[in-house]
Amino acid sequence: MKSGVEELETKGKAAKVASHHMAYLSTEVKNKALHNISDDLLLKKSEILAANQVDYKEAEVSGMSAAMLDRLMLTSERLEAIAGDVLAVAALPDPVGEIFDMRTLANGLQVGKKRVPLGVIGTIYESRPNVTIDISVLCLKSGNAIILRGGKESVHSNSALARVVQEAAYRAGVPEGAVQFIENTDRALVDHMLKMGNIIDLLIPRGGAGLINFVRENACMPVVAGGIGVCHTYVDRSADIDKAVAIAYNAKVQRPTVCNALDTLLVHADIAPRCLPAVAAEWAKAGVEMHCDEKALSILKSKPGLKVVPATNEDWGKEFLALVAAVRVVDSLDEALAHIERYGSGHSEAIITEEYNAAMRFLNEVDAACVYVNASTRFTDGGQFGLGAEVGISTQKIHARGPLGLKELTSYKWIIFGSGQVRP
Amino acid sequence: MKSGVEELETKGKAAKVASHHMAYLSTEVKNKALHNISDDLLLKKSEILAANQVDYKEAEVSGMSAAMLDRLMLTSERLEAIAGDVLAVAALPDPVGEIFDMRTLANGLQVGKKRVPLGVIGTIYESRPNVTIDISVLCLKSGNAIILRGGKESVHSNSALARVVQEAAYRAGVPEGAVQFIENTDRALVDHMLKMGNIIDLLIPRGGAGLINFVRENACMPVVAGGIGVCHTYVDRSADIDKAVAIAYNAKVQRPTVCNALDTLLVHADIAPRCLPAVAAEWAKAGVEMHCDEKALSILKSKPGLKVVPATNEDWGKEFLALVAAVRVVDSLDEALAHIERYGSGHSEAIITEEYNAAMRFLNEVDAACVYVNASTRFTDGGQFGLGAEVGISTQKIHARGPLGLKELTSYKWIIFGSGQVRP
Repeated sequence: MKSGVEELETKGKAAKVASHHMAYLSTEVKNKALHNISDDLLLKKSEILAANQVDYKEAEVSGMSAAMLDRLMLTSERLEAIAGDVLAVAALPDPVGEIFDMRTLANGLQVGKKRVPLGVIGTIYESRPNVTIDISVLCLKSGNAIILRGGKESVHSNSALARVVQEAAYRAGVPEGAVQFIENTDRALVDHMLKMGNIIDLLIPRGGAGLINFVRENACMPVVAGGIGVCHTYVDRSADIDKAVAIAYNAKVQRPTVCNALDTLLVHADIAPRCLPAVAAEWAKAGVEMHCDEKALSILKSKPGLKVVPATNEDWGKEFLALVAAVRVVDSLDEALAHIERYGSGHSEAIITEEYNAAMRFLNEVDAACVYVNASTRFTDGGQFGLGAEVGISTQKIHARGPLGLKELTSYKWIIFGSGQVRP
Repeated sequence: MKSGVEELETKGKAAKVASHHMAYLSTEVKNKALHNISDDLLLKKSEILAANQVDYKEAEVSGMSAAMLDRLMLTSERLEAIAGDVLAVAALPDPVGEIFDMRTLANGLQVGKKRVPLGVIGTIYESRPNVTIDISVLCLKSGNAIILRGGKESVHSNSALARVVQEAAYRAGVPEGAVQFIENTDRALVDHMLKMGNIIDLLIPRGGAGLINFVRENACMPVVAGGIGVCHTYVDRSADIDKAVAIAYNAKVQRPTVCNALDTLLVHADIAPRCLPAVAAEWAKAGVEMHCDEKALSILKSKPGLKVVPATNEDWGKEFLALVAAVRVVDSLDEALAHIERYGSGHSEAIITEEYNAAMRFLNEVDAACVYVNASTRFTDGGQFGLGAEVGISTQKIHARGPLGLKELTSYKWIIFGSGQVRP
């Protein structure tokens, strides 16, 4: 183990040194690096896909689930999409150097803030190899050095992708050392990384609840974490049923394995007899299994062709990441709000309503990163919100909440222009 | 001990419950609470001063230093000033509810951010009893519940002040439980508080380096800390000597016991023979002791009336909090920048120069919360920067940097107004 820790420390220090230069890198060099990465992803496609095949076959043999295998798999089309996403980040404005909140005080001091990179960003992630590119590209564009530590199951893919990033970035003039990849997947290295507070300015874990909680509890540096989404959609008594059906279908079915997918459908008792069968009929077409409370069950039990089972206590507050939804009938908006407060993970919550006051109460009172009126929670995404790509979705309140884009990877310093002022 | 922990948990839970209501409190109620506090500080002056006298006498007997005794002491004038500061915060705009970055996306979704309180803010602080009022008032105005845990040496003062805050706030309509004071000063309670991540959303330690480092390393919730200021003023070769003298004097002498006071004076070799004696002569009037490197020593040794001693290695990077300054002659701006990078604490750094390029390089390259050109580092202060009072000065890059005012005690949530949109 010792050599692994030593290597990690060496790489960390190199990243720290590089980060000082990263802070002054011109937008031109950073964008050139991103264009190089995009080009190289396509040029080295066969090499990357071959590395991914090694991971994929090992994962298949080890019995990885189909959903996880799908997350792991790279294809020619997926690589092309990733390469395109890199160009989209290159096209975004450079957040570094922005001067804001500048004012002249009564004493003549000009005081304002200037946006600067955070320094070194560490990331610990699982499974999806595209995270290697997403996070590298956002860190480079925002002037941060990066230490990548991906999961064992995608180490060949991640290694190939990290090599692409390094070569392409350094060729553009990014200081050597700015992108570090930890090939050694020994778990003990994660423990050590969490103690490198003198090196890593921000740690971003991406993966399941186990990883995120472990990082939150053990990291000695600031962590921005999230991604665990127990998302509710509440259909109010005044809802437009067509909207409710379309939104519930989209939120559950369009991509069930991600954090912003619907987990629990709450339906007001007044509208449930009309709305629930309509939602269930659509869901049935996609094979959604419904875990229903008693009232929902009594409404749906006579309908043919549905996968309906009684809900258990574990269903409330569960992130299904599959074509499964918990369903509960509530007697009031208050009951819905209380349910969400108790079981939500502070990620994305939606109300479907035509009543203005219900909409405004929901927006005001739900304490979550993203609160929707009459829209699918699936929109919680940096790209959808216009941030370009994202490094993750924060469910915490400190530093940044919701999708984390370029600006969320920066800090600021106060700059003060004086002409000899002293404090009275 | 068990009962102390139980009490802490009970108070914490009460604060959490209150925090949900605090989030929707009207500006009117919050401002009324602040006006009540200001009034009561004056009405109950004799009670507060009597409590402070108990602390003061105990501290005197225990041999507390004069500087610390001064920080501990409340007087009629100081209380009046504190009461005035409370009104200044009441007069500031309410940060909660601000809607910003609102845009309409191509699909018609209206997406923006709404400023919300953080929830429960915990603070662990030492010595200065005015912190009880400062932090309570800023937390109330920003809609946060608060758990106050002050030091043993000022427990009677803090307790009296916290009682004033509680009574005044609850009378105005702030939910009971929103202000919690931990009277038990057992150190084990601090350890427990640091583990209350389910209750406390942000922890703010205020005190010496020992406390802050302990909290940083052991807290399981986000921490915004700072306050340790190793502040440099660099006199460039092109400096206006009058400005340099005035600024160095102000930065060192005006209030030497605080974090934004000058610790190290760096002087360019070209200007040192003229500038150093001028600064030293002024400093001598206030009794400043100078710990000089060899070059500075050789310039100053023949001057009468100075307190000059050779610097040791420990003087670089030391926060003196007293009428002592380290002094070093450097050969270039680069040498000054390298010195600051190595020894600075990322708090406040200043350059005195008449050269545009030197000023801009200093502003760009120094990595600190506040970077000054031709002004005293003593301005690093929420009040001076127009934030009203402050809960502290952050030297970290996450969440907020520099003086922490009302806005820095908030987060935001994304709010999304739809009309049936689903993700394609």
